[in-house]
Order: sequence, then structure tokens, then C-alpha cells
Amino acid sequence: MVVPRPRPPGLKFKPFGLDISAPWLPRPPKTAPRRLGFTTRELALAERIKRLKKEAGSHSPSAWTLAKLIPELRMKVDACFLSNPYATKLFLMHFHREVIRPRKLRALLELYPSQNRVIATKLGRVLDLEPDSIFVGNGAAEIIQAILHRFTRQKILVNLPTFSPYYEFVRPDTQVVFNFLSKHEEFRFDPGAYLELVRRERPDTVVLINPNNPDGGYVPHAILVELLEELRGVPNVIVDESFIHFACEGNDFAYWSVAEEVERFPNLMVVKSMSKDFGVAGIRAGYAVMAPDRVRALLGNGFLWNSSGLAEYFFDLYSRPDFQERYERERIRFIRNSRRFFAALAQIDGLHVYPTSANFALVELCNGLVAEELVCRLLIRRGIYTRTCDDKKGLETGKFLRIAARNRPENAYIIRSLRRMIG
Amino acid sequence: MVVPRPRPPGLKFKPFGLDISAPWLPRPPKTAPRRLGFTTRELALAERIKRLKKEAGSHSPSAWTLAKLIPELRMKVDACFLSNPYATKLFLMHFHREVIRPRKLRALLELYPSQNRVIATKLGRVLDLEPDSIFVGNGAAEIIQAILHRFTRQKILVNLPTFSPYYEFVRPDTQVVFNFLSKHEEFRFDPGAYLELVRRERPDTVVLINPNNPDGGYVPHAILVELLEELRGVPNVIVDESFIHFACEGNDFAYWSVAEEVERFPNLMVVKSMSKDFGVAGIRAGYAVMAPDRVRALLGNGFLWNSSGLAEYFFDLYSRPDFQERYERERIRFIRNSRRFFAALAQIDGLHVYPTSANFALVELCNGLVAEELVCRLLIRRGIYTRTCDDKKGLETGKFLRIAARNRPENAYIIRSLRRMIG
Repeated sequence: MVVPRPRPPGLKFKPFGLDISAPWLPRPPKTAPRRLGFTTRELALAERIKRLKKEAGSHSPSAWTLAKLIPELRMKVDACFLSNPYATKLFLMHFHREVIRPRKLRALLELYPSQNRVIATKLGRVLDLEPDSIFVGNGAAEIIQAILHRFTRQKILVNLPTFSPYYEFVRPDTQVVFNFLSKHEEFRFDPGAYLELVRRERPDTVVLINPNNPDGGYVPHAILVELLEELRGVPNVIVDESFIHFACEGNDFAYWSVAEEVERFPNLMVVKSMSKDFGVAGIRAGYAVMAPDRVRALLGNGFLWNSSGLAEYFFDLYSRPDFQERYERERIRFIRNSRRFFAALAQIDGLHVYPTSANFALVELCNGLVAEELVCRLLIRRGIYTRTCDDKKGLETGKFLRIAARNRPENAYIIRSLRRMIG
Repeated sequence: MVVPRPRPPGLKFKPFGLDISAPWLPRPPKTAPRRLGFTTRELALAERIKRLKKEAGSHSPSAWTLAKLIPELRMKVDACFLSNPYATKLFLMHFHREVIRPRKLRALLELYPSQNRVIATKLGRVLDLEPDSIFVGNGAAEIIQAILHRFTRQKILVNLPTFSPYYEFVRPDTQVVFNFLSKHEEFRFDPGAYLELVRRERPDTVVLINPNNPDGGYVPHAILVELLEELRGVPNVIVDESFIHFACEGNDFAYWSVAEEVERFPNLMVVKSMSKDFGVAGIRAGYAVMAPDRVRALLGNGFLWNSSGLAEYFFDLYSRPDFQERYERERIRFIRNSRRFFAALAQIDGLHVYPTSANFALVELCNGLVAEELVCRLLIRRGIYTRTCDDKKGLETGKFLRIAARNRPENAYIIRSLRRMIG
């Protein structure tokens, strides 16, 4: 059931100088500054969008919320949501054929889903891991929260920029320390400097998102394993692999998870959202791999029925070899298209696209444009929902936005729209 | 949008002697002991059922899990699951008409649902409560866990018998104290004795499930409000009203929640599952009403995207007056049928049915039969899934089972089957 994957070539620990940038992303030339104009109606809409964004805190209001609260917006492309739309389509096809058409939806909605351990057992088969080491969550968000509340003691080290729940969900008495990834280094993660910081700060929890959100930076598998070895003394090491399905080191599109390293490193917890790979954020499905005593500690005080009937169906489907095979095709197709998209994006004058191994790119405006204005205009005039990074610690210059890759026609539409607007 | 309900007559505090037993439940005569026989095939099946039950801890495996893991069982009636099947039907009708047929399911599954506060705002309208005082949960189970982990300090007082998460989900360092409801008093709650215990034990958290699970005992609204007044000194008072929609004091089928008392009692937290009233356990939807600073404290460290797209649709629907009106009809219809069912159940020789104001009854076998045997036989021979209470603290005599009311034909089938089996 598990697709055997070749191991990545063993890399010697290279704290500096390892080139992990994507070679398909040439640096664009810089052009003169420019501002965007808005009509009165557009300004009013932009105000409402900004207000909703503000209410959503350091996250974006979902396309769902936006569409309902500002029905005037005609959203065509959700390039804020980080997902593989081909996989969503595949999932929906199965769901219609296996649940809706045979009228099995009632059971999914009405009955209590299985308990956490039952779902973990199924998941263990496809992941080739002991079910005892799997904790199933109501989305990765619940898992992050559970880990931070239960295992983190006093001090957590988080890279910046990052996915904000890693510092927002901590308990009030937890101290947060940041490792700033430098813009001038293309937000590249430097293991040597990191270990130095760990030795200095002595955090009890460290977090690595791989590939990182929101910049897509990637730490190769071999280096990450070497790093885990060096981090043995840290009580809790969280590696968030929510975007790992999009990261490939070789030419065969294989990806390497560190989930199986949990056996060697009892301090390691690997967090995995399913919302990204499969584009099913509405289902709330995620899991984490960690030492069995950690799973037991969590299940000992709750998390009994935290998966919905739909999440259970999803995990059932995910565990099936026929689905795995189809999904692999869609995953590779999506990665291919995404690479083309990022390359085209980088060709647009005035945009700097940072190296990414994920399904999104961090884009910096280099011609005086304001990210918030561009995001509003893309949404209002072209129905394209992207994300400013103004609310992301470490990216508050007003120049950054994050754009997700979508399917081919949508990608082409984003490129056309951006070219027309700022190119 | 809110259906105005008459206030219940103000009852003077009556610590003893208040008759809250259901008058439609006469005591059955006791008969001679008897045992049930099993065939070899049945014994093997019974073993597998017992094993699954054991693995599920102090809860029952869901009908969903049972049906998948023991496909030989032909389950016809799930009288283990505590829900109003008429409301499930109503919900499914809406869901098909508004989501499936117009092909809106994709948005529900694919996109991020709204954040906690957005859903609370909608819910606030129908509940006629400030959204600031509403915390939306991934089922009541998540809310119970959140309250116990965040607000309970050292000692919790729980009535017995009870819904086990109230003592299972506590943090490892929390002391649990029990208030034993006496079988000889028909598990009636005695406010005087309770207050005495509170004064003696000085817990920082007390829990009242109203009506109580698994016996269905009910504390009338006026008495409960007087009790809340007396409990002002306790830092955390949890009232779980997951079954309140089935409890009526007068003849007009109105029910009285203490949710609006949260304004007067900042120590009060009212927990509400939606799985029971609406029979949508697979969706995982619940909410709690509590002081705004408590809601803020919880949202400050997580619970951001804990509702699924389906849960959001459910809360949207629940907030609509047209749905509310239809639901009220189904609620009353279900209560009427349930009362008839409990009365018929009480007529069966060898069963003692305890007074209930909920949609289930606690049944004691008085003729030597073993509850586990009866539950297995009902499931294997008649496809009726009921629940032994052997795993419920305070009910470990092997004689108790809990039977939920279902729709009329299902109720009739349960009665027929029980009469044939033990009558």
C-alpha cells in the first residue's frame, strides 16, 4: 500500500552555502515606482475588504467568508488558499461516486465518527507507521494547539516569517523567541546559525516548517536529519510538513518526510495538514506523528471524537492504494504546472519571486507598488484573491504578497491580470 | 428570529421532596430471574462486540465503527445514539435541497470555513445572546476539554452517574470528587445535599448535566437558577444542556435554558451539543455560552478554525427562522413519541425504567438478566444497538442499559423485540 520511495542522496552537513533556491526563478529587473488608482466604488469595496481582513487577525478571511459578506465581489480564483485543485477534483469525484450517489451521506453526517485511535490505525497502514505514534487532529491547527499547550514548557523558538499559530497559540506564560530568516539571503534557513541560536537561547521547543510558509523555503531531507541529530537535547522539536507533498529534491518528484525519524528521535513531532495537498480545508483533517507516549498523553485528556464523519471518509479514501495511485498523478501534474507558473510570475516586471519548494510563492513588489492596493485591485477588478503579508511578522514592509499556484487556466489568468495591471 | 418562550413558574427552593419523576412511568412488577442462551456463532459475534466495546474505553463504539468492523451485524436501529431522527431528516432535506442539488458542496469541503467569531455572530442572533459570549466548538467534547484544561484549577465535582468526559478529560493534576445520585432515590438530584457537599469539598469547578446523561433526571429551571445563586462562590459552574431540547416542564413543550443567566453569573458556562437535538454527530457541532473574557481567553490561544464547512452550514441553517419553525414541529413530535415509548418500555416485565426528561431512558433489569447479554442479543438477533452501562461509574452492577427513543416504527420494533426476548 505504501509507495516505496528512493532515499535522497546523503548530503554532508553544510551549514552555509547550500543552494536550495529554485533554478527556474531568475531575478527580475527593477523598474520605476508606480501607484494604482481606484474608483470611488472600488475604494468603498477595498475598505470593506480591509475591515474583514483586520477582523480575521493575522489570518486571511476565507474566500467563503468574503463571498458571503461582500457578495459584490465576483471571486474567480482563490490564490490565497494554498491547495492542489487537481486533488480536490479527484477527491470530489470519489466523494460523489462513493457517498452522494449511493446515498451514504446520511451515515456520515448523522452517526458518531470513529474515535481517534480507530482512524489512526487506518492511517498507520498507508503511512507505514505504528498507529500508536499517530495522533489524528481536527486540522493541523488543533494539533499545533495541542502540542503547544501540552508539551511546550517555557520557551519556543520559531523562524520568521512563519505560520502565525506557532507563536499565537502558545500559552500565556510561554516565551517566544524568533530566528529571523533574512530577506537578503532569500529567507534561506541556515542550520549553523540556527544551532548557535538554540545553544544560546535554550528553548524547550523549536519549530521548523518545511517547506516554510509563507516563503516556500526548503531544508533538504539529509540536512534536516543531521539537524535533528544536533537537536537531540531540545525536549520538543516540531517539524511541520504540511507542504511536503509539493517539495521534491530530485527529478523523480519523490518527496521525503521525516515522519519515520520519530522512532530515532523521541523529541520529534511531525505535523501534517491535509488541507493543502488535497484542497479539503473545509473537512478539517490533519495528523501528527510522535512518540507513542506523547500520543497517549494527548488522548488521555480528550481528543476522542475530534474527527468528523467527512474527515473519517477522507482518511479511509487516503488509505486506499487505488486512490494513492491517482493522487500521485495529480500531485506531479500540479507541481509541474506550479513551476511553470512561478517562472512566468518571475518574468513580470516589478515582481521579485522568492525561491519556493511549495505550492505558493512569496512575491515582493519592487516598483513602489503597495501590496495591499494590489491585492484589493486584483480581487475587485479580476476576482483574484491573493494575500498581503503586511500582518506577517518579519514582512511588514507593505511590499510582500503571497500567491498560490492553481490549475493551468487559473494560473494563466493570474499572470495575464498581473501583466495588465503592473507589467 | 428568537421564539419568545414563557418563563417557567417561579418555584420556591425545595431541596427535598420535589417530584420530578415522569408520571407516565409506572413501576413494573418484578419477575423471577432468567438467563439468555446464545448459539456458537452468536457467542463468537458477542465476543467481537465486547472487544470493540472494550477498545472504545468508557464510550460505545459508534454504529459506524461497528458496521464497518463487524459487517455480519445487520444493524436496523441505533438506539445507542441519542438523537432526534426527525430533526436529522429535516436537516438532510435542507442539505440536499440547498447544498447537494445546487452543487454547492465543493465550497463546503474545499474552502476554509469561517473563523470561530464569525460563526458565533450568526449563532448569537438566533440565541438572542451577545456573540462575545459564545464559543463555537468542534462538538461539545472539544468544549468540555477546553473548559477543563483552561479554567479548572485543582478540584472538580461531578454527579454520578454522568457523561464520563467530565472526569476523563481533566488534566492529570486535577482531583475529581463525585456526588453520588442514589439509585434508591431514582437518581434524583438533591440540591440541599449537593450544596452541603460543595461547602465541604470546596471544588473550583462543578458540573451539572441537565437533563442528566445517562438517567435523564432533570432539575427544573427555577431550582437550577436558585442553585446558581447559591453557587456564586464556586469559580467555575458548568451546566451541560445538551439534552435540554427534550425537557419540558409545562404542557406547552417549551424548554428553558440557563444560557441567558451567564450575564448574572460570570462563573457559569453553559455547554450545548448539537448532535443530540439534530442528530448530526458526524458534523461535530456544539457551542458554549460563557462570560466574554472567558471566550477571549480561549480564542487567545487557539480554536481558530475548529468548525468544518459542514458545521458552518449547520449553524447557518440553525439561525434561520424558517428552519427554526420546522424544527420546533419535529422536536415536539419527537418528544410526544418518546413519552409513549418510555411508557411502553416500562410495561415490559422485568424492566425498571427510571424517570427521564431526556430522549433516552436508563433501564434496570430486575429479573436476573445480564445487561451485556441482552445488549449483544438485541444487536445480533434484532439489529438493535443499545448501550450497557457496565462501564459507567456508579452503574457497574451489570444490570443497567440505556435505550434511546427513535422514530415511531423503530420504537415499536424495539418494544416488540424486548417483549419477545424477555417479556
